[in-house]
Amino acid sequence: MPEPCIIAVAITGSLPRKEDNPAVPISVAEQIESSQEAFEAGASLVHIHVRNDDQSSSSEPTRFAAVQAGVRRHCPGMIVQFSTGGRGRDPAARSSALYLKPDMASLSTGSVNFPSIVYENHPALIGDLATAMKANGVLPEIEIFDLSHPHTARRLADGALIGERPHIQFVMGVQNALPAQERLLDVLLGEAKLLFPQSTWTAAGIGRKQTIVMQWALARGADAVR
Amino acid sequence: MPEPCIIAVAITGSLPRKEDNPAVPISVAEQIESSQEAFEAGASLVHIHVRNDDQSSSSEPTRFAAVQAGVRRHCPGMIVQFSTGGRGRDPAARSSALYLKPDMASLSTGSVNFPSIVYENHPALIGDLATAMKANGVLPEIEIFDLSHPHTARRLADGALIGERPHIQFVMGVQNALPAQERLLDVLLGEAKLLFPQSTWTAAGIGRKQTIVMQWALARGADAVR
Ligand SMILES: [Zn+2]
Ligand SMILES: [Zn+2]
Ligand SMILES: [Zn+2]
Ligand SMILES: [Zn+2]
Repeated sequence: MPEPCIIAVAITGSLPRKEDNPAVPISVAEQIESSQEAFEAGASLVHIHVRNDDQSSSSEPTRFAAVQAGVRRHCPGMIVQFSTGGRGRDPAARSSALYLKPDMASLSTGSVNFPSIVYENHPALIGDLATAMKANGVLPEIEIFDLSHPHTARRLADGALIGERPHIQFVMGVQNALPAQERLLDVLLGEAKLLFPQSTWTAAGIGRKQTIVMQWALARGADAVR
Repeated sequence: MPEPCIIAVAITGSLPRKEDNPAVPISVAEQIESSQEAFEAGASLVHIHVRNDDQSSSSEPTRFAAVQAGVRRHCPGMIVQFSTGGRGRDPAARSSALYLKPDMASLSTGSVNFPSIVYENHPALIGDLATAMKANGVLPEIEIFDLSHPHTARRLADGALIGERPHIQFVMGVQNALPAQERLLDVLLGEAKLLFPQSTWTAAGIGRKQTIVMQWALARGADAVR
């Protein structure tokens, strides 16, 4: 019998705007509506980035609260995951919505180059985010952009800041980080399972790599796809 | 018959001071003297960081020029490699000594976390450094702190900014970057050789990991040790 697999949906992300794709849900109402459509189509986890009125990335807790409330009302049982990702956000505000106790939140455990920026996740910030998640009972989804990142996650676990069963996402295909290559997924997955034998995992390919990375993940028994 | 192996010496580095170890060569005269001692003991490559009078990291071309001139005078044939590494240096000045045409210069091809900082190598800076090395006929030593870094080096080669025979150094044991583990060296080496079959390579363990990483490198036929 095939194993069940969680379908996760990242409705908005941190970058795309209406100019790029008119279907990107920006307002709170659009984000709730989009989550519900995905829920009704079979998704059971929603990864949320909120936006300011000018479409830029936001850390505003009231926006996270409103989207979470809408999802909980319209999508019973759907797992709510807040992004704590950094693009376009003040580092100090990245943990500011965790007091709302979403089920999960993303946690990047290292720094890496992106196409035109350094995606900075300062060691102290990583510790602060993990601490805030622990204090609020939020399960981290560890975002792995490079091979050192699961090792930093392991140190967080050794310091009891995260548990032995984090959910782990391998992100591939961001230019200047790791390319989307099947061999590299095996390297990352092998390392993560060595360090966290009880973890669950998924993999995400960026842009046109989304489908192929999902296929590689399914072929390896991933617990979720996105 | 055993293969010959280049012994490289990093006489100063970017961080340690006289207070940490009185033997660290800081002044130009001390750096020349230290290089010569290593040369006479069998080293044939010297990796140079210059320092300001207050011992902080310097990018001052006159200091690089003076150390290079002294090494060339006292250590005939010794390969001179300038650091373009970032700790404590203004990014814009990291290429400023390359016009002196050292034989080699270090080139970090990605960003990664260090113990308490993000070691930032902005994508644009990496391109600028590679361009300056090419313009001055300087062979890069690619500094690999994580798995994405050889892939960025590959893109530089695809853009003809570096050649097909870079020298590659794997750096292990920096906290928050990759730990010094034999399995990880195999992963990095396999990836680098896949991307650059003609490259030469070495590996460096930080601090007390120096000896063991050197042993792993020698067991794998490294072209150099440091
Ligand atoms: Zn996200
Ligand atoms: Zn509804
Ligand atoms: Zn150095
Ligand atoms: Zn002399």
